[in-house]
Amino acid sequence: MEACMNMPSSRLSERRQELLTKYEAFKNQGLKLDMSRGKPGSDQLDLSMGLFDNVKDLISEDGLDCRNYGGLDGIVEAKRLFASLFNLSIDEIFVGGNSSLNLEYDLISKAFLFGLNGFMQPWSRLEKVRFLCPSPGYDRHFAITQQFGVEMITVPMTDEGPDMDMVEDLASRDPSVKGIWCIPMYSNPTGITYSDRVVRRLAAMKTAADDFIIMWDNAYAFHHLYDTPDTLLDIIEECRKAAHPNRAYMFASTSKVTFPGAGVAIVASSKENIAHLKKQISIQTIGYDKINQLLHVRFLKDPEHLKAHMKKHAEILRPKFETVLDILEKNLGGKGIATWHKPRGGYFISLNVMKGCARRTVELAKEAGVTFTPAGATFPYGKDPDDSNIRIAPTYPPLHELKTAIEILCVCVELAVLEKMV
Amino acid sequence: MEACMNMPSSRLSERRQELLTKYEAFKNQGLKLDMSRGKPGSDQLDLSMGLFDNVKDLISEDGLDCRNYGGLDGIVEAKRLFASLFNLSIDEIFVGGNSSLNLEYDLISKAFLFGLNGFMQPWSRLEKVRFLCPSPGYDRHFAITQQFGVEMITVPMTDEGPDMDMVEDLASRDPSVKGIWCIPMYSNPTGITYSDRVVRRLAAMKTAADDFIIMWDNAYAFHHLYDTPDTLLDIIEECRKAAHPNRAYMFASTSKVTFPGAGVAIVASSKENIAHLKKQISIQTIGYDKINQLLHVRFLKDPEHLKAHMKKHAEILRPKFETVLDILEKNLGGKGIATWHKPRGGYFISLNVMKGCARRTVELAKEAGVTFTPAGATFPYGKDPDDSNIRIAPTYPPLHELKTAIEILCVCVELAVLEKMV
Repeated sequence: MEACMNMPSSRLSERRQELLTKYEAFKNQGLKLDMSRGKPGSDQLDLSMGLFDNVKDLISEDGLDCRNYGGLDGIVEAKRLFASLFNLSIDEIFVGGNSSLNLEYDLISKAFLFGLNGFMQPWSRLEKVRFLCPSPGYDRHFAITQQFGVEMITVPMTDEGPDMDMVEDLASRDPSVKGIWCIPMYSNPTGITYSDRVVRRLAAMKTAADDFIIMWDNAYAFHHLYDTPDTLLDIIEECRKAAHPNRAYMFASTSKVTFPGAGVAIVASSKENIAHLKKQISIQTIGYDKINQLLHVRFLKDPEHLKAHMKKHAEILRPKFETVLDILEKNLGGKGIATWHKPRGGYFISLNVMKGCARRTVELAKEAGVTFTPAGATFPYGKDPDDSNIRIAPTYPPLHELKTAIEILCVCVELAVLEKMV
Repeated sequence: MEACMNMPSSRLSERRQELLTKYEAFKNQGLKLDMSRGKPGSDQLDLSMGLFDNVKDLISEDGLDCRNYGGLDGIVEAKRLFASLFNLSIDEIFVGGNSSLNLEYDLISKAFLFGLNGFMQPWSRLEKVRFLCPSPGYDRHFAITQQFGVEMITVPMTDEGPDMDMVEDLASRDPSVKGIWCIPMYSNPTGITYSDRVVRRLAAMKTAADDFIIMWDNAYAFHHLYDTPDTLLDIIEECRKAAHPNRAYMFASTSKVTFPGAGVAIVASSKENIAHLKKQISIQTIGYDKINQLLHVRFLKDPEHLKAHMKKHAEILRPKFETVLDILEKNLGGKGIATWHKPRGGYFISLNVMKGCARRTVELAKEAGVTFTPAGATFPYGKDPDDSNIRIAPTYPPLHELKTAIEILCVCVELAVLEKMV
C-alpha cells in the first residue's frame, strides 16, 4: 500500500485516469479470455497421445483380459506403478476410475451413509459434522462438504501449510470436527507445500473424534516446475508412526499427467482402510476401466519415465508461470497493494490484493473480457472474509493471451484499489 | 417329476448308479470350468477392437477437446446416439462413466443422502425403506439395496414380468415401499421381456410413497439372439403418459456391446430428474471419460450400425444358448424334474429344478469342477425360498467347455433329485 498510500490525492486521480484509459483500450479489443480453471493447454495434452500406441493385446501381466469384467481394485501393474510412485505397498492402494475428486466424494459419502472403517456410526446420524478447511483452498472440496451439510471452518494458510495451532485446537476440542481438506503439495491455489513439521503435527495430533480423517488430495505430486522440486513427507507413513494408521486417505490421479477426465485416479490409505473400502466398493461397481489403466502403465512405464514426462509439462508451464510473475512484479511490485507466492509447481498462482478489492477486481476484469475464478471461490461458502484472494490459473491459455489477461488483471487490481481510495 | 416319480425304487437306485458312474468320470477329468458370471467371451471382445482405430483428433463435433476437463453429462454425439437408440430427447439422458451398476448405486445413494428430485426427505432419515425385488433377479441389485439396509420383498416373476397384482398391492398400501428393481428385457436370469401390460401397470399404478422409483436396468436392450426380437415399451414415455413423469430411471450401457468395464453407461429419466441429477453430480465429479465416449460413437456410429454390430454378437452367442437348451432338453426333458425358459436374448438361461434341489445341484457341480452362480443368489439375501433356481451363464466359456459343463449340470440335477427320492 505504501506507494499508493503516499500519493497526494490529485496524483491518485491522475493515475486512475491513466489506468481507465488503458482499461478502456483493453475493453475495446473485445477479448474473451478464460482464466478460470486449472486446465492443461492442448500442447500439454499432445504430450500423451502416445497413450494409444499400445492397444493390441489388452491383457494384464497376470493374464487378466482388461477388456472384460474383473479386477475391482485395479490391474496389478497399475497398482505397482502407483505404489512405487508414492512409496506404498500394493495393498495400500485402490486404483479407481477417472477422477480423484469422485473418489473423495465417495469416501465422504460412505462416511455419511455407513460410517468409516471400524466405526458403525454413519455421519448422517450426527447432529453436526464439521470440517476444517485451510483457505484459500479448492472450491470443489468445499462444494462436496457443503452438499453434505457439513459446517466448514476456515483455517488460514501459512507459508508451510494450515495454521496448525488452530487445527490442533479445533480438532482436539470438538468431536464434531471430523476431518480436514488438504492439498499438501503445490497447494491449490497458494502453491505452497506443507512442511515436514506440519505433516507430522497433522499425523500426531490428538483429535476429539476417533474417526477424524485427513483428506490428502495429492493432486500435484509430480507437477514440478523446476529441477529442484519441493518435497513432501508421506502422510500415510507418518500417521502409522504416530499410531493413527487409519487417519489419512491420499488421493491422486493422472489427470494432469495424461488427460483430465480420461486419466486414472487412486485412493491410498492403510491396508485395513483399503480392504474395507474394497469390500464396500464391490457392491457399488463391478470394476473400473482397466483398458485405460493398462494403456496408462504402458505409456508412463515407471516412476523414472513418468518424471521425464512431467518435465515436458514443466517446459510448457514454466514460461507461463514466469510470465505471470514477471507481469505482476512489473505492474504491482512495490506498490503495497498486492502480494503473491512464487510456486515451484502445481497449477495456480494465488494473488492477495488489498482487503475488500478482490471481488471488484474480478468484476472489472470480466467486463474487459477476462474471466477469472470468482473471487471468494477459494473459501468455504464462497466467502473470502477479507475479499482479498484471487486465483490465477495460468496453464490453459496460450502465452500471448495469458500476457494480455494478466496485464488487464494488474490494471483492474490497481483500479479497484483506487476506487476505494479516491 | 412324472418320469422319475413313476419309476419303481429299484429302477431309481439303478439310475442313480448310472449317474454316479458318469459323475465320477467327469470328476476324474479334473475340470475347472467357470459358468458363474455373465461375461462375454473373448471372441466377442475381439469384435470391438476397431474402437481404437479413431484416436486422432479427439475433438467432439461441437469443438470440445475430449482430452480435457468439461462436459459433465456427456459429449453431444454420445447423448444423441443414446437418445436415438432409446427414442428419448437429449435432455432426458445423462452419459456417465463405465458402469450402469455404479449409476444405479449412485441414485440409491443420493436418495438416502439427499432425497430424490422434488423430495427433501433423505431415505436415511426414515425408519424403514422397502424395495420390491422381482425374483429370480440380479444378485448385484439385491446387494446394493442390502448394503443400504433396505428391506427387500421378493416378488415372483411370471412369464410377462413381475406378479403385478402383488406389486400393486404392496406399492399402494405401504409408504415405506420406495421402489422396484427391474430388468425388463431378456431379464437376468429368466430371459423374459416385460409385456406391454406389465409396463403400463408399473407406470400407472398408485403408490403410497410419492417418491417411489422404478429402477429400470435395461441392460440387454440390444442383446437379441434372433432376427425377430422381443419388444419392450418405453417406460419413460409410459410414466409420462400416466402422469408419473419422474417415476422411472432407465439405465443402460455398452458393457456387452463393446467392453465390460470399459464401455459407456447412461441414466435416462424425465428432463426434470436429469437436470436435478446433473446439478448433484456436478459436485461429485468434474466429468466422465469423454475420450471413451467419443471412441464409442465413432465406432458404433448410429442405431443401424450398432444393431449390425449386435448381430455379430448374436452369431457367437446363439449356438451357445441353443447348445445349452438342446442338452437340457435331451437330458432333463420330459422327466418332470426341471423347467426352463427359452430366452430370445440376454445373457442367461434360468433353470428351475425340483424344490430343494438347487443348492445341492450347484454343490455337486462344483465338486466336479464346474462353478455355477451360487444357488439362491438370484433372490434377495441369497435365499431362494424354494431352493429351486439355478442361473446358467452360457456366454463366456468356449462351446466345447460349455457342452461339458451343461452335461455335468444335467447329471447333477438328476443326482440331486434322486438323493431326495431314494
